[in-house]
Amino acid sequence: MKAIDHASRIDRVAEAIGADTLLVTDLTDLRWLTGFDTSHGWAVVRDGEVCVGTDGRYGEKAVAETAGTGASLIVEQDRSDLHDRMLTLLTGTTVLVDASRVPHRLWTDLAARGLGLRHTESVIATLRQVKDAAEIERIEEAARIADLALAEVEPMLFDRPNELDVRAELELRMVRHGADDRSYPTIVASGPEHGARPHHGASRRTIVDGDTVIIDVGALVDGYHSDMTRSWVIGEATEEQRETYVLVAEAQQAGLDATVAGGSSRAVDAACRDVFEAAGRLQEYLHGTGHGVGLDIHETPFHNRTTDVTLEAGMVVTIEPGLYRGGFGGFRIEDLVLVTEHGHRVLTHSPKREL
Amino acid sequence: MKAIDHASRIDRVAEAIGADTLLVTDLTDLRWLTGFDTSHGWAVVRDGEVCVGTDGRYGEKAVAETAGTGASLIVEQDRSDLHDRMLTLLTGTTVLVDASRVPHRLWTDLAARGLGLRHTESVIATLRQVKDAAEIERIEEAARIADLALAEVEPMLFDRPNELDVRAELELRMVRHGADDRSYPTIVASGPEHGARPHHGASRRTIVDGDTVIIDVGALVDGYHSDMTRSWVIGEATEEQRETYVLVAEAQQAGLDATVAGGSSRAVDAACRDVFEAAGRLQEYLHGTGHGVGLDIHETPFHNRTTDVTLEAGMVVTIEPGLYRGGFGGFRIEDLVLVTEHGHRVLTHSPKREL
Repeated sequence: MKAIDHASRIDRVAEAIGADTLLVTDLTDLRWLTGFDTSHGWAVVRDGEVCVGTDGRYGEKAVAETAGTGASLIVEQDRSDLHDRMLTLLTGTTVLVDASRVPHRLWTDLAARGLGLRHTESVIATLRQVKDAAEIERIEEAARIADLALAEVEPMLFDRPNELDVRAELELRMVRHGADDRSYPTIVASGPEHGARPHHGASRRTIVDGDTVIIDVGALVDGYHSDMTRSWVIGEATEEQRETYVLVAEAQQAGLDATVAGGSSRAVDAACRDVFEAAGRLQEYLHGTGHGVGLDIHETPFHNRTTDVTLEAGMVVTIEPGLYRGGFGGFRIEDLVLVTEHGHRVLTHSPKREL
Repeated sequence: MKAIDHASRIDRVAEAIGADTLLVTDLTDLRWLTGFDTSHGWAVVRDGEVCVGTDGRYGEKAVAETAGTGASLIVEQDRSDLHDRMLTLLTGTTVLVDASRVPHRLWTDLAARGLGLRHTESVIATLRQVKDAAEIERIEEAARIADLALAEVEPMLFDRPNELDVRAELELRMVRHGADDRSYPTIVASGPEHGARPHHGASRRTIVDGDTVIIDVGALVDGYHSDMTRSWVIGEATEEQRETYVLVAEAQQAGLDATVAGGSSRAVDAACRDVFEAAGRLQEYLHGTGHGVGLDIHETPFHNRTTDVTLEAGMVVTIEPGLYRGGFGGFRIEDLVLVTEHGHRVLTHSPKREL
């Protein structure tokens, strides 16, 4: 796979912040910027230079993962020493911090030291929205692996497995096919109750004839996620099941059709919602229509009624409408797509079965 | 398994806060209090009553999971509507919020509405430290399952597997033995470089003769975690490997010996650290000695040099010293223990092999 060019990311962030200092506390932003994957650390970007801080558990890992990026490292075993080192780096400039992500106490601690703080929507989260070729390669590989695993496991659905068996088998096969891990705990939601909960996990419930089944599955490759959902009926579908499934498929196609550079995330959401509304089923649509995918499984842009982001070529987003009702179950169909100049390219290729 | 008595937890929290209102934003606190497991929601505790808010994705799940707790529910599809409903619930009282957990923006939003805010160390996190019988039953079951899985997978280590194969096999077997999931991504850290990183994950590196190997594995049962680490040498151990392993085992025993109700988390940490210091190896000890385990895999109390919590009967904590050096590898030995009046009860029973 192509190497990820962290040095050029550091340059772009430095350009975006000018003479200010950026304090990076979000761990995914830290990884995107420097390649360092940790559960504890931060970065300070100032004067075109990056300094990464972490504790002793991650010292070796930080050295290995930031090699070649030009970042300097601070490793302190003691957390309060590490905190003090960070404060020293921040003195004398205006510090850009995202107030919606930083805990109130850290903000007030920094302010108490006399630092000039300015809230900024995350500079890095915005840059992260548009993926480069190396990132797309990883996401596409993750999607390919999930497709392979799902194709192998699908026949099992019709043989009375329980939800957890299906999940375990999918996750094992994704790793066998080259994934580093699952992207998130795989959802296997079957039957009239579990299927009606968009974010049901997986249980020991046996999947039986007549069930609706939703599987929401993705793989992880070098930190990058994929995300896909398919739905089934076990055995012969009822008329209500068939109608509902077709409606979800139509809504999903409408969402895909609206996905093009220059379009808007709100328009993608509206395209799906309009299909459900015309059928009088909008009250069964319990979530937003999609989200960006990258180093986080859920990242900006979000497709819903309250945010509006202009789509750009290189964004990787999901389109995932669904309908859910207690006592009936539910269906969701989700693809992961790359936004392109003239439309989009679908990255998830598992067949959408007709009922 | 024993049912978890959420109603009595709600009573205890109500008693702790008196006439004030508690805003619960931490999702694990929310689950502990009400049984509701979600990725988006909050609770407000006021006048002995709990109100839970969430969005439409989780409406069905919230109804099912809070049944019998006495909590009332607010479900809004739109996030800003949900936010407004929360603000309405909070008017006219002093609101207790944990400033180290709440984002600065939410704090300032609440303050701008004229709400009286008072920082408080999380009331619920403190109550969560001491586990009841139903919780101990779940944690013990999770530990038992990890023991079973590790016993089955251990022979594989000596047959040149790669780290990810070992992880996948452990995780599959934990689910087969009754776990809902792994507790966290299992660590399989082998050889001179990976073994030297306390929080290495798992890679495609083949485990070979002469390697040190660290496996850090736990299971998840009804939301409760277990946590255990064992270490090996593949083939005949060198003198240096044997000495290092024995030192880690001695430190771990010293930590266990210090674990008793009335003792202190700092003393447990010091007991391990003293063994390494006496041997002149303290610089190879790169992390704290342990942490509480419950609905979170890492929760208070933490055993390290900078915090000091008095141990109480019913706390469930890890004791996990280790030594690490690039070019050599590393060893860590970790048990999960229940603190008791006169000592502790070890919950993880996998054998600690002699080298």
